[in-house]
Amino acid sequence: MLRNIPKVKRYDVFELVYAGKTEGNPFIDYDIKAVFKGESEEVEVNGFYDGFGNYVVRFMPSFMGEYEYSVSGSFSDETYNGTFKVIAADKKNHGPVRVSDTYHFAYDDGTPYYSVGTTCYVWELRDDKLIAETLKSLEKAGFNKIRFCIFPKHYVYNLDEPRSYPFEGTPVGSYLITPENFMEYDYKTQGNNWDFERFNPAHFQHIEKCIKELKKIGVEADLIVFHPYDRWGFSNLPREVEVRYLDYIINRFAAFSNVWWSMANEFDILPNRDDSVWNFYGEYFKEHDPYNHLRSIHNCLRVFNHSEPWITHVSYQRTDLYKTAEDTDGLREKYGKPVVLDEIAYEGNIQCGWGNIPGEEMVRRFWEGAMRGGYPGHGETFLSDDGILWWSHGGKLHGESWKRVKFLLKILCETPGHGLKKVPAEWDCVTAVCEDDILAAETGYRIDYYSFMRPGYRGFNMKDDSLYEVEVIDTWNMTVKKAGTFSGKFKIELPGKPYMAIRLKKV
Amino acid sequence: MLRNIPKVKRYDVFELVYAGKTEGNPFIDYDIKAVFKGESEEVEVNGFYDGFGNYVVRFMPSFMGEYEYSVSGSFSDETYNGTFKVIAADKKNHGPVRVSDTYHFAYDDGTPYYSVGTTCYVWELRDDKLIAETLKSLEKAGFNKIRFCIFPKHYVYNLDEPRSYPFEGTPVGSYLITPENFMEYDYKTQGNNWDFERFNPAHFQHIEKCIKELKKIGVEADLIVFHPYDRWGFSNLPREVEVRYLDYIINRFAAFSNVWWSMANEFDILPNRDDSVWNFYGEYFKEHDPYNHLRSIHNCLRVFNHSEPWITHVSYQRTDLYKTAEDTDGLREKYGKPVVLDEIAYEGNIQCGWGNIPGEEMVRRFWEGAMRGGYPGHGETFLSDDGILWWSHGGKLHGESWKRVKFLLKILCETPGHGLKKVPAEWDCVTAVCEDDILAAETGYRIDYYSFMRPGYRGFNMKDDSLYEVEVIDTWNMTVKKAGTFSGKFKIELPGKPYMAIRLKKV
Repeated sequence: MLRNIPKVKRYDVFELVYAGKTEGNPFIDYDIKAVFKGESEEVEVNGFYDGFGNYVVRFMPSFMGEYEYSVSGSFSDETYNGTFKVIAADKKNHGPVRVSDTYHFAYDDGTPYYSVGTTCYVWELRDDKLIAETLKSLEKAGFNKIRFCIFPKHYVYNLDEPRSYPFEGTPVGSYLITPENFMEYDYKTQGNNWDFERFNPAHFQHIEKCIKELKKIGVEADLIVFHPYDRWGFSNLPREVEVRYLDYIINRFAAFSNVWWSMANEFDILPNRDDSVWNFYGEYFKEHDPYNHLRSIHNCLRVFNHSEPWITHVSYQRTDLYKTAEDTDGLREKYGKPVVLDEIAYEGNIQCGWGNIPGEEMVRRFWEGAMRGGYPGHGETFLSDDGILWWSHGGKLHGESWKRVKFLLKILCETPGHGLKKVPAEWDCVTAVCEDDILAAETGYRIDYYSFMRPGYRGFNMKDDSLYEVEVIDTWNMTVKKAGTFSGKFKIELPGKPYMAIRLKKV
Repeated sequence: MLRNIPKVKRYDVFELVYAGKTEGNPFIDYDIKAVFKGESEEVEVNGFYDGFGNYVVRFMPSFMGEYEYSVSGSFSDETYNGTFKVIAADKKNHGPVRVSDTYHFAYDDGTPYYSVGTTCYVWELRDDKLIAETLKSLEKAGFNKIRFCIFPKHYVYNLDEPRSYPFEGTPVGSYLITPENFMEYDYKTQGNNWDFERFNPAHFQHIEKCIKELKKIGVEADLIVFHPYDRWGFSNLPREVEVRYLDYIINRFAAFSNVWWSMANEFDILPNRDDSVWNFYGEYFKEHDPYNHLRSIHNCLRVFNHSEPWITHVSYQRTDLYKTAEDTDGLREKYGKPVVLDEIAYEGNIQCGWGNIPGEEMVRRFWEGAMRGGYPGHGETFLSDDGILWWSHGGKLHGESWKRVKFLLKILCETPGHGLKKVPAEWDCVTAVCEDDILAAETGYRIDYYSFMRPGYRGFNMKDDSLYEVEVIDTWNMTVKKAGTFSGKFKIELPGKPYMAIRLKKV
């Protein structure tokens, strides 16, 4: 008998589907919930209506062993019970990402996670061919996080209709809209015709498929719940619809181990809501998400008060044209949370200043952030005849900075223990050491990053008797060259080029 | 008779030399003063002892016409009277530089002066061959101001003895000093042997020669009166010696039209003096310099209170590794005075972060400062086998930024009226217009500078009916290309490279 019970891998999704009642509005009129009980955990979850009479509950087990479940709710007059077995996780699946050591991240199984992310706001709402290309590009570059929206996006270079909508109904259509008038466009006076009481399951099913594809290539799905770039009215739904939407995405998406919740993109320019609304929604996720996925909120001009307890990490957009990643250590100190630089401008050549920095400057911002113990995010906005800009649509990468991501990630992964922090050392470079003070002292591990400055050499004066292995890192050309072993006072020659670093560790 | 009276050109130096008393200490025991009286001015000056029994008075006439003079003082039992005639200034001599239109500079005759300076701290204390080479380099680059010290400099790459000393006596010698120990060196415990009551006229005569050579090639001599880089004790003289030194340099140098007074380099790290001492000295110059030359004070870490009335313009050193020239508009607003960026780091490759920025970054800082209505300063610190770094010693220029100075100066000189200011326009570029609002409106003159950002095009939406001539400026490659004439809404194509600008003016 036992050999016939269902098996699921740890951190994978165990899903149950039931036919249920369809009279009235199944999205509102009925509920479905379940309890999953194993030796080490008991988890209550809510399910959701998936259309065509189907009710679904999902569960992500965090432990191995045998589980029982019990499914009930007004969707059915019956209660469904059963058992299943959780086997070892897939070798590449380490579970959801958690905050670790205050300023860093690790997967649920303890494996360190060094975030190097990118942004493609609505890549998943494009056609299948482009989606496949985006996934290939992500994998090639080595990104391990991507930010994207659940709702479609209306903005410059984003005037097409999406492949699907989150609600039943019909949009006004894009034929009225041009790059010249799109900012003045007011959805309220136009012919959008949505039934906000009925979700469009196909929209969410498709997003789930994309989340799963991301998981296969080791990419976290940083889901943007709300955003202001709108011609459909999705940025200003009635409050009860917004809460129903939160329930729906929690109940659908939370069982996917690679989900993060980004409460908003540019929260401060969404209409008709103050910080208390964001705090209410943030707390709502904290309370209702059974797996406690990471939660953040991303700014336009005004940085949210990241001391709010529902916020797991800082999600920071540049607030100054010139300095951005340099703010990392200040944000760490201010909030005592990991700092993710979810927009430090985009490499590209579009007309807007947020979307036209050189690749060198992007990579410099990556290293400035990473050496300060933060986690940089990439983006690309190159003018293109086909209107496919990575920043929103994914596709191919055209820049220079993405090629340097895997190299930085490799360097980060070589950190003894887990995570770097900036320490006061020289005034004219960023000195990163191990976050853990004992490890830092034991290993002497240290990276001095020189940013755009280009010393021809650097002098060191080590206060201990240790012998240090010294390497010269070219962050742009992605080379690590051994300089030799040294102790006491010594000099390390450098090529006098920008974007260099020196790494030391005790032999 | 009249044809035999001496002639001097306006803004040149009229000098009178007399043999006088030599008993005792002529530097202290006797004085010499003079009154120069023309139709439009009456100027009282003090003279100075020049050694070998010679007493000198100097006068710079600001007007043409006949002058009388009367020289007296305890140096002699006689009074000397005479007349001379001031003829038109040399075509290239426009007189001393003055503050003009609050934030800008003009020569005394009203000709606008756009400062593009450099720093060679002790170029004039090197050998004649190197001095000649420095002058050639200055002229080639097009710099029109140079900062340098009256006292010799002791610092890394500055360990040689100077060609002369400001006082009679003998130094300890440099044989004890190495690049490793120079910072610990304490002049007080060493064998310096100076007579602070006797200046060394040869030292000052030589500096005068250099000031005159600078004048010939149109370069202002921004004389640094005090500085902290010292092994001779000159940074911490007794107060009465310092005041006597101020008198001496005023009486000797003030008659040279191209002199500026920089009270200190890095005032905040000179020993044993608080701000009241600087204010006393600054006021002293204001009171005693008959020609009211420009006066400034230059910071290390702490910016001096530039609201002090003796300060004619802000002399600003970078206070942040990343942003510097971007502070210009804030400093203008705070102090209501011209802003001169007298150190925005050095192009080069030495080990120190202040001395190894790329040429591109230096030129970017020049344009950021200039487009904000400030006046950038250059410097160069390339490692060199002969130890000759432009920053201190002059010589040859090795970098890339100096080549772009004349181009920027040409653009600045094309400003209608006098001087630029930054106005709020687009958030993602610096928009410079004419300082004068009426001229700005009349001419529509405007430069949008894009810094390291690299838009592929920019859209404009002019609110008036004017036709605009539009040019694309490549600040790095030093080209100005006509884009055409436009009005209303229009788009200007750009090459998608950093360091570009667009210039508009009404046809």
